[in-house]
Amino acid sequence: MSGTAEELEAGNEAPLPEEGSSVKISPELEVPTEEDLLLAAAYVYDAQYNRNIPFETSPQAIRFYYLYNHWSMQIATYFFIFLDLSLALFEEPAVYPLPFLATSLVEVLCLCTFFGRLVQFAKVTSRTVFWKDTKNICILLAILLTLLDLIIYGTLRVFNIHSIRWSRFLRPLFLINFPESRQIRRAFRSIRNTLPEVLYVFLLLIFNVLMFSLMALKLFGDRNLKTVEGSSYFTNILDIMFDLYVLVTTANSPDVMMPAYNLDWRYSLFFITYIVINTYIFMSVFLAVVYNNYRKHLKNEIRKLAYMKRHKMIKAFNILKTQEGPEFVVKEAHWKQLVKMVAPDISNSHRELLLRISDEEQKGYVDKKCFLRLADLLNIQVITMKFKRHPLEIWMPHIYKSSGSLFIQKIVQHRFDTLIIIAALMATIANTAIKSAVEYNSQQILDIIFILRLLRLIRIVDSIQRFRVILTTLINIIPTMLTFGGLVLVVYYIFAIIGMELFKDKVQFFSESSTDTHALDCGNPALKDSTFARSRYCKNNFNDLASSFIVLMELTVVNQWHVIAGGFALVTHEATKLFFIAFHIVVVILIVNIFVAFILEAFFVEYSLEKSEIETTIEKKIQELGMGIQEEDVPDGQLIDNMETNENDLSGGEEMQKQSSKGLFFRIASKRYRTVDALLQRMFESEISPEDEGPSLDEILNLSPSDMYPKNPTFENSA
Amino acid sequence: MSGTAEELEAGNEAPLPEEGSSVKISPELEVPTEEDLLLAAAYVYDAQYNRNIPFETSPQAIRFYYLYNHWSMQIATYFFIFLDLSLALFEEPAVYPLPFLATSLVEVLCLCTFFGRLVQFAKVTSRTVFWKDTKNICILLAILLTLLDLIIYGTLRVFNIHSIRWSRFLRPLFLINFPESRQIRRAFRSIRNTLPEVLYVFLLLIFNVLMFSLMALKLFGDRNLKTVEGSSYFTNILDIMFDLYVLVTTANSPDVMMPAYNLDWRYSLFFITYIVINTYIFMSVFLAVVYNNYRKHLKNEIRKLAYMKRHKMIKAFNILKTQEGPEFVVKEAHWKQLVKMVAPDISNSHRELLLRISDEEQKGYVDKKCFLRLADLLNIQVITMKFKRHPLEIWMPHIYKSSGSLFIQKIVQHRFDTLIIIAALMATIANTAIKSAVEYNSQQILDIIFILRLLRLIRIVDSIQRFRVILTTLINIIPTMLTFGGLVLVVYYIFAIIGMELFKDKVQFFSESSTDTHALDCGNPALKDSTFARSRYCKNNFNDLASSFIVLMELTVVNQWHVIAGGFALVTHEATKLFFIAFHIVVVILIVNIFVAFILEAFFVEYSLEKSEIETTIEKKIQELGMGIQEEDVPDGQLIDNMETNENDLSGGEEMQKQSSKGLFFRIASKRYRTVDALLQRMFESEISPEDEGPSLDEILNLSPSDMYPKNPTFENSA
Repeated sequence: MSGTAEELEAGNEAPLPEEGSSVKISPELEVPTEEDLLLAAAYVYDAQYNRNIPFETSPQAIRFYYLYNHWSMQIATYFFIFLDLSLALFEEPAVYPLPFLATSLVEVLCLCTFFGRLVQFAKVTSRTVFWKDTKNICILLAILLTLLDLIIYGTLRVFNIHSIRWSRFLRPLFLINFPESRQIRRAFRSIRNTLPEVLYVFLLLIFNVLMFSLMALKLFGDRNLKTVEGSSYFTNILDIMFDLYVLVTTANSPDVMMPAYNLDWRYSLFFITYIVINTYIFMSVFLAVVYNNYRKHLKNEIRKLAYMKRHKMIKAFNILKTQEGPEFVVKEAHWKQLVKMVAPDISNSHRELLLRISDEEQKGYVDKKCFLRLADLLNIQVITMKFKRHPLEIWMPHIYKSSGSLFIQKIVQHRFDTLIIIAALMATIANTAIKSAVEYNSQQILDIIFILRLLRLIRIVDSIQRFRVILTTLINIIPTMLTFGGLVLVVYYIFAIIGMELFKDKVQFFSESSTDTHALDCGNPALKDSTFARSRYCKNNFNDLASSFIVLMELTVVNQWHVIAGGFALVTHEATKLFFIAFHIVVVILIVNIFVAFILEAFFVEYSLEKSEIETTIEKKIQELGMGIQEEDVPDGQLIDNMETNENDLSGGEEMQKQSSKGLFFRIASKRYRTVDALLQRMFESEISPEDEGPSLDEILNLSPSDMYPKNPTFENSA
Repeated sequence: MSGTAEELEAGNEAPLPEEGSSVKISPELEVPTEEDLLLAAAYVYDAQYNRNIPFETSPQAIRFYYLYNHWSMQIATYFFIFLDLSLALFEEPAVYPLPFLATSLVEVLCLCTFFGRLVQFAKVTSRTVFWKDTKNICILLAILLTLLDLIIYGTLRVFNIHSIRWSRFLRPLFLINFPESRQIRRAFRSIRNTLPEVLYVFLLLIFNVLMFSLMALKLFGDRNLKTVEGSSYFTNILDIMFDLYVLVTTANSPDVMMPAYNLDWRYSLFFITYIVINTYIFMSVFLAVVYNNYRKHLKNEIRKLAYMKRHKMIKAFNILKTQEGPEFVVKEAHWKQLVKMVAPDISNSHRELLLRISDEEQKGYVDKKCFLRLADLLNIQVITMKFKRHPLEIWMPHIYKSSGSLFIQKIVQHRFDTLIIIAALMATIANTAIKSAVEYNSQQILDIIFILRLLRLIRIVDSIQRFRVILTTLINIIPTMLTFGGLVLVVYYIFAIIGMELFKDKVQFFSESSTDTHALDCGNPALKDSTFARSRYCKNNFNDLASSFIVLMELTVVNQWHVIAGGFALVTHEATKLFFIAFHIVVVILIVNIFVAFILEAFFVEYSLEKSEIETTIEKKIQELGMGIQEEDVPDGQLIDNMETNENDLSGGEEMQKQSSKGLFFRIASKRYRTVDALLQRMFESEISPEDEGPSLDEILNLSPSDMYPKNPTFENSA
C-alpha cells in the first residue's frame, strides 16, 4: 500500500501524515509497485548508513539516487578532491615542479568532475532543496572563482606579469562541502558553535595580558635590562605583549623571566602570578568552554541522527504497509523484495535469518515495531562458522596441518593481533621507505623484524584487564581520528597557502656540508646571529607545501613557536607575527582543545559503560535465538560448543538448527569495536520507545542543545 | 527526652536506634539536662560546619570539644604548623641564616604544641577511636622521629660531624594530618585513588617511549649526526629515552628533530607520529583518567558529607525529642536553648526569626523535618537593613552628604567592586614592596593608581552577561585554589628539601656586574659551555628554600625543564635526572591535571546550573515569608521597595512586620558566591527526601563511588 509520489514528496517536507489517513485504504490493492519498493529501499538505505540526503521521490530521481550513492562514484569524488588538493605540491613554490599548463589542466578536470557531481545531486533532489543548501552554492561559487582565477592568472602569465593564485585557499571547500564529509562538517560546526564563548574568554585573556603588560612596562621599562641575546628587555609595550602572550603558551618560560629574576628574586612573583592566572586558569577555562560545547552539540547531533533514522524507517513502512486485522503490517513477500533491493549482496539464507528475527512467530508478516529495526539488522555482520571441517582439512589433511597453514589459521583467528601486525607493517614500510632513500642493508631488515616482534608485546598488555579499557578506547578512537585528520588538513592547507605567499624563499636551507657563507644566516642577512639561525631552523620554512606542513606541525606543538615567528618577522615585518598568533588561536586553542575534548568524551563514555552492557532489543533477540556471537571473550573453539549447547536449549529451534547447520551466525560487533558516536546513538535509540515516532522532520532539523538540557539538573548529571 | 550518655556513645558507632525505641518514653520527663543540650549542640555545630570528629558523649569530653573547636586554638595550630614549615628558610642552606640552636629550639616548641593539640584531641574522643585514626599515629610518629633526628644531628654537630637533617621531609605531615586540613587530605586522597589507573597509562606510555627509542636508535644511531650543541645525536639508548620523554612534554620540540630533519625531510614523519601518539593522545588520556576519578570521588565525598550532616541532626533531634500527639517534636524552649548554645553570638531577634521559619504555624514546637534544617538555617547570613535612616543622616546631614561620605557609602554598596579593589591593593602592595626594595618615587605611585583604575574596568566587564558566568566561576574557584595552594606547598616542600640535599651549592649565581671568571659557568667548570650556563640559568638553583621553590615552579611550567635537569645532571650525576622526572610525574601529570579537572568541573557545574535555580526548601520558605534578599540583581534602593511590597502581600504578616521594622533580613548567599562543593552538596541534599534518614554511620563511612554509579547509564548522564 503506498501513497502517490506527490504526497510523499510533500511529506518529505511536512510532518508525517497520521497513520491510517493514507489515501488508498482498500485492502485489495496490496501489491506495492516496483517504484514504491525502490523508494522504500532508498529510505531504508539512508537509515542504515545515517545519510541525510533529501531526495525526490520520483522513480527517475530514485534511480539517480542509487547511482549517486554507488561506491565507485564516491571513491571517484574523493580521488578528485585529493588530486585537487595535492596540486599545491606541483605548483610554484613546488616540491616537484610541473609546468603551469599541466597543473591548470588537471585543476580544470577536477572542477569538471565536481560540477558533474553537483549536477548528479541536482537530479536527485528537488530544485528548491538544491538551491536552499548552502553547501551546493559554496561548491558552485568555488568552481566559478577558481576558473576565474585560472583565467586571470594564465592571461597575466602570458604577458609575464606575476600575480597571486588566490583561489588556492578555496580548494579545501570541496573537501568540506561534499555530502560525504559529514564528520568534518560536524567538527567545523563544533568550532563555529564554540567560537562566541571562546571569544569572550579570549577577550578576558587579552585584557589580562594587557594589564600585566602595562605593569611589566612600569616595573622593568627603565631598568636597562638585557635579554640573553643582548637586546633590550621589556621596553616596548607591543614587544612586552607578544612576550607575555608567548608566556601564556609557556614557550619562553623561564627565559623571559631570567633577566628580571637575576636582578631581584622578588620579580619572579610577578611572573608566577601571571603564569598561574593565564597559563593554568585561562587555558583550563578554554578547555572547559570548548569541551562543554562539544559535549552539548555532540549529543544534539546524535539525537538528530537517531530521530532521522526513525523518521525514514516510518516512511518506508508507510509505503509498504497493509492492513492485517487491527494493525498495519508489511507482508513477508514485500519485506523480502525490499531487503533484496537494499542489500542485493546478501545470501538467501542470510535473508531468511533476518526474516526469522523480524517475524519471530512466523505469521507471514512483519509488524511495525520489527520493521523499524530493519536498518539496524542490516548493519549487523553475519559470519559463516566453520562447523563443517575446512575443505582443505578434508581433501589435503597433510597440507592443512603443516606449520605454514597453521600459522595462517592462527593469523585468521587472532584478529586483534593481526591488526597490530598490519599497523606495524605500515610503520615499517614507512621506515623502510625512509631508509631506502638513504641507505639499505639486510641487518636493518632484521632490526625491523625485531621491532615488529616487540610490538607483539602489545598483545600481552591487552590481556591484562586494566590495560584493556585504555587500549579499547584508543582503538575506538581511530576512526574519528581520521575526521580530525581531515579537519587539520583543511586548516593546515589554508595556513600553508597563506604562509607560502608571505614567506616563500625568504629563508633558505643549505645542507650541513655546504660551505656557502649564507649557511649561517639561512641565506638572509636579516637572520644573522638570530636565535632562529643559531638553532639551525633554516629548514623550517614555507618554501613548499611539505615544508610548510612540517613548520605548522611544529607550531601546533607550540614549543619554540616564538623563535620561528620571530625569525619570519625578521625577514619580513613585525606584523607577520599576527599570522602565527592567528594560527595559535585557531589550531592550539580551538582544534587541539576539541581533540582533547573528544578523547575525554571517548573515555568517559567507555568508563560509564564499563560495567554495564547496553544491548539493543535486536541483540537481545538474536542472543535469545542462539544465533549471536559476541566477538570477544570466547576463544574460537569454545564458541562452537557454546553455540551448540544454546541450540539444544531452544524449544522451537528446528528451523534454527537448519540455519545453523549451514554455519550462519550473526556476529554482534562487540562493545570493544564501537566508536563513541555509535555507542551514544545506540544508547539514545534504546531509550526511545518503539512506539515513539519522534518529532516531525522540521522539529528534528531544528533541535537545539538547549531543548535537551533538563531544566532541573540532578546531582547525577550535573557534572 | 534523652538517652543516657552510654547509649548515645554506643549509637555513635552502631546504627541509629529505631525511633520510639528510646529508653525513656514517659512524656513527664520532658526537661533535657544541661548535658543533653550540650551534646545536641555539639552535633548541630558539627553538622553546621561539616566537621567529622567522633567525640565522646560524656559532659567532660563535650566541654573539651568546645575548647578544641575554639577559633583561637585552630589559629594557634595553623600558626605553629607554618612556623615549623618556615624553619627551612633559616636552616642551612638558609635564606636568612640563624644558629642551629635557635631553629631547633623553635622546632621543639612547635612539636610541643602539636603534641598538646593531640592530647586535647585524645580527651575529646574515645581511646579506641583515637588509636584507630592513622592521622594521630602519623603525627605522633612524626613528632618522635623529628625529636630523634634533632638529638642525633645535634650530638654529631657537637663532634663536628656533618649529617643530614632527614626529618625535615616530615614537616608537611603536620599540615596534612591535623583535622583542620580536610580539603588538602581530600586532594591527596584524590591523587591516591587516581594512582593505580594513572600507573597503567604511564606504563603504556613508557612502553611506547621504549619502542620509539629502539626505532630511533636503529634509524639515527650510526649516522654520525650532531646536535646544535655539537654533541652526538641519538647514539645512546638512555639518552634517547630521556630525549623522547622530554619530547612528550614538548619541551625540546622542534630542536630534537632538527638534525634528522636537516638530513632528510622524511625523518620528520617519525617525530610527528611520536608527538601525535604520545603528546596528544597519551597526555589527554592522563587528563581523562585523572578527571574521571576526580569526579567520581568528589561526588562520593559530597554524598558522605550530606549523609553525615543528616545523621548528626537526627542524633541531636533524638536527644531533645518529646512526644506530641502522634509525632516526636522539639519544644520551643529547648530549641531556643539549643540555638543559644550552638550560636551564642546571634541576637534575640535573629533567633526569633529562625524560630518563625522552623515553627511556621507557631504551634510551640519544632517538628522533625524543620529541626533537621537547623544547621542550614544557621549558615544563612542575616543582615540588618537600613530601613531607618542612617544615624549620621539624621544628626549631621551635611557630613552624610559630603562627597567623602558618599564615596564610603558607595564602597559599602558595591561589594563585588570592593573585592577587586582589595585584590588590586594586595597586588599593588606586593609590587610596591618589590619596588621599595629597588627604588621608589612618587611617579610610580601614580602609575600604580593608574593601573588600579584600569582594574576597575573589570566591573564593566562583569556587567556583560556573557563575561559574568566566566567571572562568577573564576571567583567561586578562589577558595578551593587555596586547597591547591596547600597541596602544592606540601609537594614543593618535600621536593625542595630533597633538592637542597642533592644540589646545594653545586651551582652558584654571580650578579650581572660580577667580573668573576666563574660567572660564565655558574661557578662550576662542569657547566662550561652548557646550555644551562649559556641561558644564564645560574640563579635557578637549590641553594635555599626560596630559590628551590622558584626552580620547582619553572619545572611545573615544563618548558626548558630538560635544560635545568641537564645542568644539574652535569654538576652531579646523570641519575639525578630521575629527580626531575619524578617531579614531572607527580606535579605535572598528577597535580596539574587534578587542577585542570577541578576547573573543568567548576565550569560544568556552573553551566548546568546556569539556567536553573536550585533553591533549598529553606530558601523557598524564607522567600515566601518575604524575609529573603537575593544578593545579586537588585540595586540597594529598589531592594527595600521590593521587600515592602512583599510584606504587604503577606496575609499573617504582623509579627513579620514587627521583625522587618527592626530591619532584620536573611541574606541568601546568591548562586554567584557558592563554591562547587557547596553547590553540589546543596543539590544532593535537595534530592534526599526530608524523611530519608540516610544509611547507617558505618555504611556512610564505607560509601564507595561504585555504589553510586547507576548500573544502566542513560544517554543524559553517560557523558
